[in-house]
Amino acid sequence: MRCEIVAVGTELLLGQIVDTNSSWIGERLALAGIDCLRHTAVGDNRERMRVAFSDALDRSDAVIVTGGLGPTQDDITREVLADVLGVELIRDADVVVRIEAVFGGRGRPMPASNLRQADVPVGSHTIAEMPGTAPGLVCPVGGGGDDSSKVIYAVPGVPWEMKQMLEGTILSDLKRRAGISSVIRSRTLRTWGRSESGLAEDLAAEIERLDAVGGPTIAFLASGMEGLKVRITAKAPSDAEVDDLLAEEEVRVRAIVGPIVFGVDDQTMESVVLDLLIEQGLRMATAESLTGGMIGSRLTDVPGSSRAFVGSVVAYDGDVKRSLLGVPDGSVVCEAAVTAMAANVCGVLGADVSVAVTGVAGPDPQEGEEPGTVWMATCVDGVVDAVRTRWPFDRTRIRQFTVITVLNALRLRLLARRDA
Amino acid sequence: MRCEIVAVGTELLLGQIVDTNSSWIGERLALAGIDCLRHTAVGDNRERMRVAFSDALDRSDAVIVTGGLGPTQDDITREVLADVLGVELIRDADVVVRIEAVFGGRGRPMPASNLRQADVPVGSHTIAEMPGTAPGLVCPVGGGGDDSSKVIYAVPGVPWEMKQMLEGTILSDLKRRAGISSVIRSRTLRTWGRSESGLAEDLAAEIERLDAVGGPTIAFLASGMEGLKVRITAKAPSDAEVDDLLAEEEVRVRAIVGPIVFGVDDQTMESVVLDLLIEQGLRMATAESLTGGMIGSRLTDVPGSSRAFVGSVVAYDGDVKRSLLGVPDGSVVCEAAVTAMAANVCGVLGADVSVAVTGVAGPDPQEGEEPGTVWMATCVDGVVDAVRTRWPFDRTRIRQFTVITVLNALRLRLLARRDA
Repeated sequence: MRCEIVAVGTELLLGQIVDTNSSWIGERLALAGIDCLRHTAVGDNRERMRVAFSDALDRSDAVIVTGGLGPTQDDITREVLADVLGVELIRDADVVVRIEAVFGGRGRPMPASNLRQADVPVGSHTIAEMPGTAPGLVCPVGGGGDDSSKVIYAVPGVPWEMKQMLEGTILSDLKRRAGISSVIRSRTLRTWGRSESGLAEDLAAEIERLDAVGGPTIAFLASGMEGLKVRITAKAPSDAEVDDLLAEEEVRVRAIVGPIVFGVDDQTMESVVLDLLIEQGLRMATAESLTGGMIGSRLTDVPGSSRAFVGSVVAYDGDVKRSLLGVPDGSVVCEAAVTAMAANVCGVLGADVSVAVTGVAGPDPQEGEEPGTVWMATCVDGVVDAVRTRWPFDRTRIRQFTVITVLNALRLRLLARRDA
Repeated sequence: MRCEIVAVGTELLLGQIVDTNSSWIGERLALAGIDCLRHTAVGDNRERMRVAFSDALDRSDAVIVTGGLGPTQDDITREVLADVLGVELIRDADVVVRIEAVFGGRGRPMPASNLRQADVPVGSHTIAEMPGTAPGLVCPVGGGGDDSSKVIYAVPGVPWEMKQMLEGTILSDLKRRAGISSVIRSRTLRTWGRSESGLAEDLAAEIERLDAVGGPTIAFLASGMEGLKVRITAKAPSDAEVDDLLAEEEVRVRAIVGPIVFGVDDQTMESVVLDLLIEQGLRMATAESLTGGMIGSRLTDVPGSSRAFVGSVVAYDGDVKRSLLGVPDGSVVCEAAVTAMAANVCGVLGADVSVAVTGVAGPDPQEGEEPGTVWMATCVDGVVDAVRTRWPFDRTRIRQFTVITVLNALRLRLLARRDA
């Protein structure tokens, strides 16, 4: 099964928007075991679209077209598809009803132009998922219906509409056509505290063992302040079996790498820390210097954070560190300073636990300390732990790595506290 | 002059990276007045690359290939180009010296595999800009050298290397080939405080006038918390003339839309506010509730922000608002609360001016107020201005729009103070 993707839209060629759809679809196809040989982007031009669709169909067994399904005169994917398939368009009465229902649900009358969206090439059918007003299409090529040798799918360019149709209909139809009956699924373990090469070294023997037994597979993905991701991908005849394989491999990986795993899939460092705080009935504050409020900002990105997060003192200026947080006279980039910040912010804001950071974000040195020199501290049950680091990064990454690192230090202490 | 872009790399097809190069190049081509008809992404496969290059060359006058110029065995763009051009590769002694110099400058020995990067198709030449170890190539097609009827350019996939070669050599070579002798350049005015449709309405007459006289052109680009951008694009025979046109049109636009323009090109709301504060010798603090520290975090993203920003009190919890910022008992989402926050944070942190925000980020209502209800205040010279708004957005955008809106309010007061 060879597949291609054709993205339609003059705005893509003009660089007004970046085509993230094709890479997303490419990743899903790869995970499903289907080869994707080419991505093409073409403008809203009838002849150039016709050539792009036909050429793709000549080379490949399946073509996924994104975009050009809207209600305006620019949106001509339906017409070009009918042309390439050598058939007429007919208005699908069921689809008219569905489009009218979408408008009815929003309490708005349907513009007449939207009726064009109900036009379907003869011999094709619409995709069941229809989150917007644009139906997706499954177009078997050259007769044979569901068992045709080739197929074109058309989906809207709106990412969330496209994704529902891919995951709901197209990927499984492609797998059926390719004779792939197995289920392929991934689980991502998010880690912090070990480099990518260190992690690869730790897991080298396990990866070798998995190679020998034929799976699951393990891949690494560095994601800045979102952590270093370890993706486990498994393949099995059924959902239940693939879930078992993933669960089993997660246990093995965790046994090898230990508590550097802070979350799974969509869990963030912030959400995990907040969950631990809520579970233990603790209220948290931050005392921030070089991060300027970023730790609090990230924590409060999480809905419901008010159940554990009380607030921050951002002491960017040295005088604020001294007057409000009791930092002793002298350097504000040292253990005594960060310890005072962590301990005293709990009192100032009425919190049980805290994190504190002070250091040099750069680009210039400060108090004789080079950019990247950072002191981080956590305070739990009145006991402060402080540590110094020296990041070899630019200003933005120094700040970001400081945020995730100090939250990870708190996470480890909260885990120890829970298990004590 | 018809142009196409071909991006090479299996990692693009697998969705491991998003192809941002093609959209960037597409935008530059459009600005230079050159039509770009198609983007293609193809894997590191000799035969599929050959077909993609040949087909693009059949359809178009110029093809820009990105990627596949590295030193590894996967990197075969050079070989495929020679094949498509029907010529041999020869090792270019000058390029060998340049590559050796790059390694020498980094104090590292050059791996033998890097010599492959000095192989150039006969009749082609390298691009003068070479920020990495991969030379870019200009390959005239079918003889005729610089005056050949068609051309292929090859540049590395590394964005900053690619951009230097495009801006240094390729765009001007394309313009020469297309007989475009004029200079096209843009200036972006960044605005806040008016909707896209409102702005379009304000500028409708001016856009009509520009249409009639044949330029410059005006386009709008909504960019979230980076503001709503108004891009002026002008075309003239020389740099000096195009700069004059842009300056003249900027004056006209500013006269029409007034002080909603907060910056030009790379200026951000944060950098502009900090500049105004530094210019007037003022020190600033923030009192944040629903933004959780984001205002301070954005301000301290700007290097040198310590010259004006002293810190923040993030009072996420109601008790902190009352104990530290003197918010009166009762609602914390009201004028009295935000006024107390703005006024008192100046005293707490020793600042001259401040911004304060309190409200409901959602997803749930709070104190009977719907998500999106936000009070914002500024304090300048002891005088507080407060305003209420109701954002029809999700949690993330409610927070982001609050940040830029309150900073814009402070900007306007600082401008008035300066001009008083």
